[in-house]
Amino acid sequence: MAWAFAGTMTFHFNRHSGEADGPRLGTLHTNRGEVQTPAFMPVATRGLMRGPWHSQLRPMGVDMMLANAFHLFVRPGVETVQKLGGVHGMMGWDGPVLTDSGGFQAFSLSSKTKVTEQGFKMQNPVQGGWIDWTPAFAFEVQAGLAPDIAMILDVCPAKPLDETICKNAIATTLRWAKEQRDLHDARGGVDSGQAQFGIVQGGVFGDLRESCAKGLVELDFDGYAVGGVSVGEGFHAMMAGVENSTPFLPVDKIRYLMGVGTPLDLVESVARGIDIFDCVWPMRAGRFATAITNQGKLHLLNAQFTNDTSPIEPGCPCDACISGIPRGALRAGFKSKELLPSMMVAQHNLFFIENLMRRIREAIRDGSFETLRAEIVSAYPMPS
Amino acid sequence: MAWAFAGTMTFHFNRHSGEADGPRLGTLHTNRGEVQTPAFMPVATRGLMRGPWHSQLRPMGVDMMLANAFHLFVRPGVETVQKLGGVHGMMGWDGPVLTDSGGFQAFSLSSKTKVTEQGFKMQNPVQGGWIDWTPAFAFEVQAGLAPDIAMILDVCPAKPLDETICKNAIATTLRWAKEQRDLHDARGGVDSGQAQFGIVQGGVFGDLRESCAKGLVELDFDGYAVGGVSVGEGFHAMMAGVENSTPFLPVDKIRYLMGVGTPLDLVESVARGIDIFDCVWPMRAGRFATAITNQGKLHLLNAQFTNDTSPIEPGCPCDACISGIPRGALRAGFKSKELLPSMMVAQHNLFFIENLMRRIREAIRDGSFETLRAEIVSAYPMPS
Repeated sequence: MAWAFAGTMTFHFNRHSGEADGPRLGTLHTNRGEVQTPAFMPVATRGLMRGPWHSQLRPMGVDMMLANAFHLFVRPGVETVQKLGGVHGMMGWDGPVLTDSGGFQAFSLSSKTKVTEQGFKMQNPVQGGWIDWTPAFAFEVQAGLAPDIAMILDVCPAKPLDETICKNAIATTLRWAKEQRDLHDARGGVDSGQAQFGIVQGGVFGDLRESCAKGLVELDFDGYAVGGVSVGEGFHAMMAGVENSTPFLPVDKIRYLMGVGTPLDLVESVARGIDIFDCVWPMRAGRFATAITNQGKLHLLNAQFTNDTSPIEPGCPCDACISGIPRGALRAGFKSKELLPSMMVAQHNLFFIENLMRRIREAIRDGSFETLRAEIVSAYPMPS
Repeated sequence: MAWAFAGTMTFHFNRHSGEADGPRLGTLHTNRGEVQTPAFMPVATRGLMRGPWHSQLRPMGVDMMLANAFHLFVRPGVETVQKLGGVHGMMGWDGPVLTDSGGFQAFSLSSKTKVTEQGFKMQNPVQGGWIDWTPAFAFEVQAGLAPDIAMILDVCPAKPLDETICKNAIATTLRWAKEQRDLHDARGGVDSGQAQFGIVQGGVFGDLRESCAKGLVELDFDGYAVGGVSVGEGFHAMMAGVENSTPFLPVDKIRYLMGVGTPLDLVESVARGIDIFDCVWPMRAGRFATAITNQGKLHLLNAQFTNDTSPIEPGCPCDACISGIPRGALRAGFKSKELLPSMMVAQHNLFFIENLMRRIREAIRDGSFETLRAEIVSAYPMPS
């Protein structure tokens, strides 16, 4: 069964529960190849991975990468990215790429951001001065960078627990969404070679999430993201944010949960009808010596690993685990600030997450998703 | 034609000029496999490479790796290295390994070292306090770490231009050499599974080099190194140091020029009868954005590379050059302190050097060494 996604890009379900909010198995068809969903996109903020080599990504099952429009605008700039062959040329990656719009940077760099009705004023972290990062500008920058999927510029509320702030954030997000949707149409929609995704905000408030989702769906985006999660609200509030968003999104459009990536969060979000994810956490945790394994997280700097001859995760077939370099050597290397342990554990963690997505896809296909879900929840328990 | 090296380790010449100081083509046979010479050993000071993954080494032609006994003693310590399977187990490397003795660290960390008649007092860079790094202790540490080749502890004079200092340095070096040679014999010599190399010192003084070499040869080491070079004396004085050492070394023992590594230095030292090398420079230069190419060094941070879509070196088949990530993207990444460009250019540079060694071996074999030498000198001119 297949649903038209839009224009030259289509999203097919191979199997799903028939309900809007159950686990979904799909294939996103793009001009640059397929993405098997549920899928996890590794984050190359400035176009480069921080851990694995790009050549290690395909073999571990990565179909699509993520980069950040704001950071690429700041350096090396749109003109240079274009001269280097667009984001794909710059990244040496011929598969699909999604760029984030910079809305999250307005949140994460909020001490250096001013919000106005027209957009963000964001401090240039390289050259100083201020950038007028408006919805139209974020659209233009992404049109120039030429990813396969561009995100709309939204307002990610810094205080997801404050109802007035969230209400204002979705009002602005919807106004900006309309503006960017019109620009997308004027450019030819997805036939331009670039899809555009709307982003549901609303913090922890169900009615705001519903209202934002419905407003975006009226604008008919090529896909939808759930944003403003994983910003400190906690696991259960985050899941509520997903549950309050997905039922109001069309079943036949792809759904992206932004900035999510622990094994628990991934499996629980798939259970609630999410198709694609991105997150810096797996690789960042690895660079700081935390390994993601089927037995939970291992903090490799712990003294217990001093003389440990095991690989990061026994039985794991990833490049780091088959290297023969044991945990004890990685621990010593981390303590000496060597570079290779960071790269290797980051690579292992991404491999773990990509392999988890593969297992999730297989489990949805063969009907064993709940078994896998229970296994992950056991290794990565839900906070009370 | 083959010469016995010693015990279970032998060094065969496949072809050489018949003179002590011409280019030599050989094979070092060890318990852990062969090393085709002339060879370049990449440096894993603390057991880990700073750039390529260890899995990238064999395919680029690396037969033998180098680690540092002093640094491994400091962290993780001999006992831990032993529990991790010796240096080989720790490094995930089943080929031969050579460890340096810490003599160079006494020079490079000289502000934290005191020289006595009995050995060095060296500050522990991790735990503080002082380590009595004596010849006997350097021997024991290396016996414990279990590399295939151990270097004697020597005195590398901090002022290679001061004759009195150099004279005293070789006197101490020879006395310590005798002490360590006796310990090696007592342990069973090379049949212990570990070879021991003497190190010729003498700074820029030909008579001191000759005297030190002859003194070492009387002790009959398994192999010989030329040390105390590449410490600021300049190219021509360094070559004089080699020329003043090799004629006094036996033709049938392997010769190792310590800490040397530019394309020019390698080709010119092979021309003077050196068999093996190590150097941190190729990878360190790469981590700081300098690429080694057949057209000379490229400083990738230069503005001329901003929009450059070429790989690091067009036509190079190394992992970095076939990645599709162009110079312009690497330059932007270096400016943003991203990790991957450092790793990639370090990998390219080591590949270049290992490939140069392969070309040197082929050129010696087919009689075209002088042609290759002229090509390298053209791209990497000798200082006047």
